[in-house]
Amino acid sequence: MRVRVAILGSTGSIGKSALDVISRLKKDFEVVSLSANSDISCLAAQARTFRPKVVAVGNESLVPGIKKLLPRGVRVVHGREGLNEIVSQADVDIVVMAITGTACIEPLVKAIGSGKRIALANKEALVSAGPIIMNLASLKKTMIIPVDSEHSAIFQCIDASGGAGVSKIYLTGSGGPLLNVPKKDFDKISSSRILDHPKWKMGKKISIDSATMMNKGLEIIEAKYLFGIDDSAIEVLIHPEAIVHSMVEFVDGSVLAQMATPDMRLPIQYALTYPRRSRSAVKPVDFVKTARLSFRKPDYKKFPCLGMARSAAKAGGTAPAVLCAADEEAIKWYLEGKIKFSDIPKVIEKVLVKIKVKSKPNLTVGGILGAVSWAKEETRSICCR
Amino acid sequence: MRVRVAILGSTGSIGKSALDVISRLKKDFEVVSLSANSDISCLAAQARTFRPKVVAVGNESLVPGIKKLLPRGVRVVHGREGLNEIVSQADVDIVVMAITGTACIEPLVKAIGSGKRIALANKEALVSAGPIIMNLASLKKTMIIPVDSEHSAIFQCIDASGGAGVSKIYLTGSGGPLLNVPKKDFDKISSSRILDHPKWKMGKKISIDSATMMNKGLEIIEAKYLFGIDDSAIEVLIHPEAIVHSMVEFVDGSVLAQMATPDMRLPIQYALTYPRRSRSAVKPVDFVKTARLSFRKPDYKKFPCLGMARSAAKAGGTAPAVLCAADEEAIKWYLEGKIKFSDIPKVIEKVLVKIKVKSKPNLTVGGILGAVSWAKEETRSICCR
Repeated sequence: MRVRVAILGSTGSIGKSALDVISRLKKDFEVVSLSANSDISCLAAQARTFRPKVVAVGNESLVPGIKKLLPRGVRVVHGREGLNEIVSQADVDIVVMAITGTACIEPLVKAIGSGKRIALANKEALVSAGPIIMNLASLKKTMIIPVDSEHSAIFQCIDASGGAGVSKIYLTGSGGPLLNVPKKDFDKISSSRILDHPKWKMGKKISIDSATMMNKGLEIIEAKYLFGIDDSAIEVLIHPEAIVHSMVEFVDGSVLAQMATPDMRLPIQYALTYPRRSRSAVKPVDFVKTARLSFRKPDYKKFPCLGMARSAAKAGGTAPAVLCAADEEAIKWYLEGKIKFSDIPKVIEKVLVKIKVKSKPNLTVGGILGAVSWAKEETRSICCR
Repeated sequence: MRVRVAILGSTGSIGKSALDVISRLKKDFEVVSLSANSDISCLAAQARTFRPKVVAVGNESLVPGIKKLLPRGVRVVHGREGLNEIVSQADVDIVVMAITGTACIEPLVKAIGSGKRIALANKEALVSAGPIIMNLASLKKTMIIPVDSEHSAIFQCIDASGGAGVSKIYLTGSGGPLLNVPKKDFDKISSSRILDHPKWKMGKKISIDSATMMNKGLEIIEAKYLFGIDDSAIEVLIHPEAIVHSMVEFVDGSVLAQMATPDMRLPIQYALTYPRRSRSAVKPVDFVKTARLSFRKPDYKKFPCLGMARSAAKAGGTAPAVLCAADEEAIKWYLEGKIKFSDIPKVIEKVLVKIKVKSKPNLTVGGILGAVSWAKEETRSICCR
């Protein structure tokens, strides 16, 4: 029997790659449901190719439009309830979580609660509600397999030891599009140039996060929860070639690294086929052509988001959720041309200092979602000034 | 109960490192027996520190000498029978095979036959009698854990991935002491300079093999048998920094690499503690200080031993044993100053072309040992001319 897959966020960059992977592994996987926030023409085209049973759209107003485009027999659901339905259907084995931002928190919790295996491409949910999510996954005995290339690398490196004997994680990053741009020139770079990442073709939000290096900061927190390792044992290394996707150091001094041509189809496929590996369309690394792999320290002064993320990781409680939400909202304002690039970290910082209760035991999903709403509201009011 | 270890070749470079590792892991390991070919004062000193039950020396004439130096109660055995006794004693769990050259074939076969777990530092035995040894290990359900840094790296990478889906092995090598010396100047370099390897402190034979790159050639054959992968899927990469100890590519395009500061104590310890890892004295890699890792193709014209090893791997039968034996004997003549450095590959080549039966099914240990004797005799007669 084929493994039955639901893809949340199928019209985004990761969602499309996931469908590309499945189209090559038709013998092993079938698509049971797809979801998109607003791009109904793309969603309908995907539905015509992959023939899911259900598709979900962002809100009710999109339902009549998509219905006209869909083949017969495909059911349409919508909104929050629609996503919740998709991730808890009995005929789904794996849920690919490819929704961006904190909007992923609720459906992720629901999917884990329904015992589904998770291929997790979203990082904000885990950053915001890490302890809750990991506890629930352990309780429900489901696996969360990371799709983020760095976390997939770490997962591949420590798979055998089940986390035992890990002494350090090296989180590598290409450095993003502003690596070699002086800080004083940041605001002279257009957002379209910033959206054009040198190594990875990605969605808008993550591309901006890559430019501010908040992306790497969020990954520190993601790795902390996912692998149960203290954030002080997670070191960021700038690695412009983007071949080494992360490394794990063990107590004996041995380091395992996972490498590949930068192509998101690899970690997506691995999350689907794990623990097996299948042939893929990913080009093998040509080490002779690449010739060199380089590593250096990140610049915490030039990229203050990195340090903010470290502080939020240390603070715990709602701090990581507030960090995520403020970042998400600030990026929205930046992309709308209402704040400057250099304002993004400043705005986030201003929201972070307003957190009253730094650490709170027994946090609930409701508490996290409340913190997210509060932080977005605070961010808006700061951006409006 | 502590794991009981026998070390064959305890006074050599690997043997000493193995004892250093065990001295740090006294809670987990005890030394039951030690062997040395001729260095009885070093062997006696080791026996005083580690208190083995038995020590073995190369031949009977050394017995009275060592007996005077040993603490009370340590039994002395000698020669071939002595080694065979040591590796088959009931109170031994792991045998560290740190004898150089084809002399290791017989005790290795005996140790596997006795069901001992093997920490294999010797490569010539596996190169010469690979199929026989791997079949026997599978029959006896014992594990052969490689201590060669490259093969330990490959073992760690494959193990981390559950063993399946290997498509390629990248065997890395520092390039040896002659990497940047023009071929025409090889004979101008003194043997003492050649013995001084830039990255690894090793025994004499392996240091010369490193200079001719026969070492990397033997490693191709070793990897072929150890991991059951065709030699055409094993690629050699020159990696002067000697941080990446080898890499494994999987069918999905993912590559796992094992890295560490060059220190033989790491693979030795891993072979002892596997599948666990323990803290070690090995310095962690400083990636920021190292800054870059580089890779390039080896020069098959400058280092003909590499190509000869590939041919022997393809030919199979007794060819790898003949390659090993001729190499071993030629190095002996070189170290005695009787042939030039550039003669080493020429001599080996001359012996290889004399092999009559290129491939022979149902090879026995006796057949392999016969080929070894024949090849050494042929090498001597060529060197004498």
